[in-house]
Amino acid sequence: MPAKDLAQRLAELERDCLPHISMNGVVFGARTGRLEVLLMRWFGLDVWGLPAGYVRKDEDLEEAAARMVREQTHLEGVFLKQFRTFGRADRGEAAFGELLRARGLDVPAGHWAFGRVVSVGYVALVDAARARVVPDALADECRWWEVGARPRLAFDHDEMVERALAALRAGLDELPLGETLLPGEFTMPELQRLYETVLGRSLDRRNFQKRMLDLALVERLPEPRPSRISRPTYLYRWVGGR
Amino acid sequence: MPAKDLAQRLAELERDCLPHISMNGVVFGARTGRLEVLLMRWFGLDVWGLPAGYVRKDEDLEEAAARMVREQTHLEGVFLKQFRTFGRADRGEAAFGELLRARGLDVPAGHWAFGRVVSVGYVALVDAARARVVPDALADECRWWEVGARPRLAFDHDEMVERALAALRAGLDELPLGETLLPGEFTMPELQRLYETVLGRSLDRRNFQKRMLDLALVERLPEPRPSRISRPTYLYRWVGGR
Repeated sequence: MPAKDLAQRLAELERDCLPHISMNGVVFGARTGRLEVLLMRWFGLDVWGLPAGYVRKDEDLEEAAARMVREQTHLEGVFLKQFRTFGRADRGEAAFGELLRARGLDVPAGHWAFGRVVSVGYVALVDAARARVVPDALADECRWWEVGARPRLAFDHDEMVERALAALRAGLDELPLGETLLPGEFTMPELQRLYETVLGRSLDRRNFQKRMLDLALVERLPEPRPSRISRPTYLYRWVGGR
Repeated sequence: MPAKDLAQRLAELERDCLPHISMNGVVFGARTGRLEVLLMRWFGLDVWGLPAGYVRKDEDLEEAAARMVREQTHLEGVFLKQFRTFGRADRGEAAFGELLRARGLDVPAGHWAFGRVVSVGYVALVDAARARVVPDALADECRWWEVGARPRLAFDHDEMVERALAALRAGLDELPLGETLLPGEFTMPELQRLYETVLGRSLDRRNFQKRMLDLALVERLPEPRPSRISRPTYLYRWVGGR
């Protein structure tokens, strides 16, 4: 990014967005039994962090969060939940400003975007296979990392990932997992594997099936899927609970 | 409050605090079987709302919340938990500014404190009998209201109360209820009544006792309290769980 673009971007922030407030999105993706998180590598640096955004003056917090996730993943209507606001006095993008300055960019000393910023954290869960991820203006690279194998993150972003994961798991019964992350019809083992991926542990097959049906999260289709090599397999569809 | 004080307060806000960010405290008190919430009536108006505060530039969010509750209740070290940040684009103190202006105060048109404000909500649970509540600079009156019999609140403060209550109840097992709100030694019925007050519903006696002991939240003292008119009563003390 040329220095001119940075100056222009900062001027736009000043004009359009609430100062001293940012958002961070912890976007989890579930894919083939792995739980992944979307990370970006900042412009010209070997530093990874979470996608970030700002709140436009005419925009609800929730709208700003949805916009941020949409811009990073090109997915609409994803499951998105506010989980915590981070506001330690020593948190801020000052270090990022220093790094950019060391690369010769003209980073203004007094701009709030490089000072103390309170960040509202949102957690999202998307179908990683359907997402088309793109680096934002401040990033060189944007990609999925398996949660447990991610690089060390900048600022307090590792704490954000841990807290987002805890919030996701604590609210699991409210998550439209089967609706968002599976095709319209699926088998019980496919659904169980998805829950196990998000929870990071294995579940008892019988209890799982009973719970899904007791909570009326899924409904069994009348006709089983025939098979030549095994017993017919029942299919389910997501109905989302009572 | 004379107009001069308002101008001075706004200048101090500008100098000391992060702009466009406020805090609201939903302070619940449990007392004699009633769940109460602390409300204040705004300066010169018949409008009730939640205690509010701002975040000093050198202060963590958590510190600012603790300070707000301390200033309103004169209690130290209370249970305090961030539960949600409120940021609708149309939320703001503009209406409050209009009301003050109608009373002849010189409210500056462009000050952020009467514009759009994102508010971080904290929920607290205190011993209402020990609190010494005082109106802050913008309030004429500050007192406890039974939650279900409270007046209609300004802005989005009713939504804040409802969400705070839900967060409190959802996290009940983590709450140091017996430690904060009961004397050092108490009976099981006293503890049960406290939980029922916070939950707003009655609990089964046997299940309650079993759960408290299973979670190791309380410990029975060896010597029962003798009684001349009934069986001896066992006393418990809070140990806070495993």
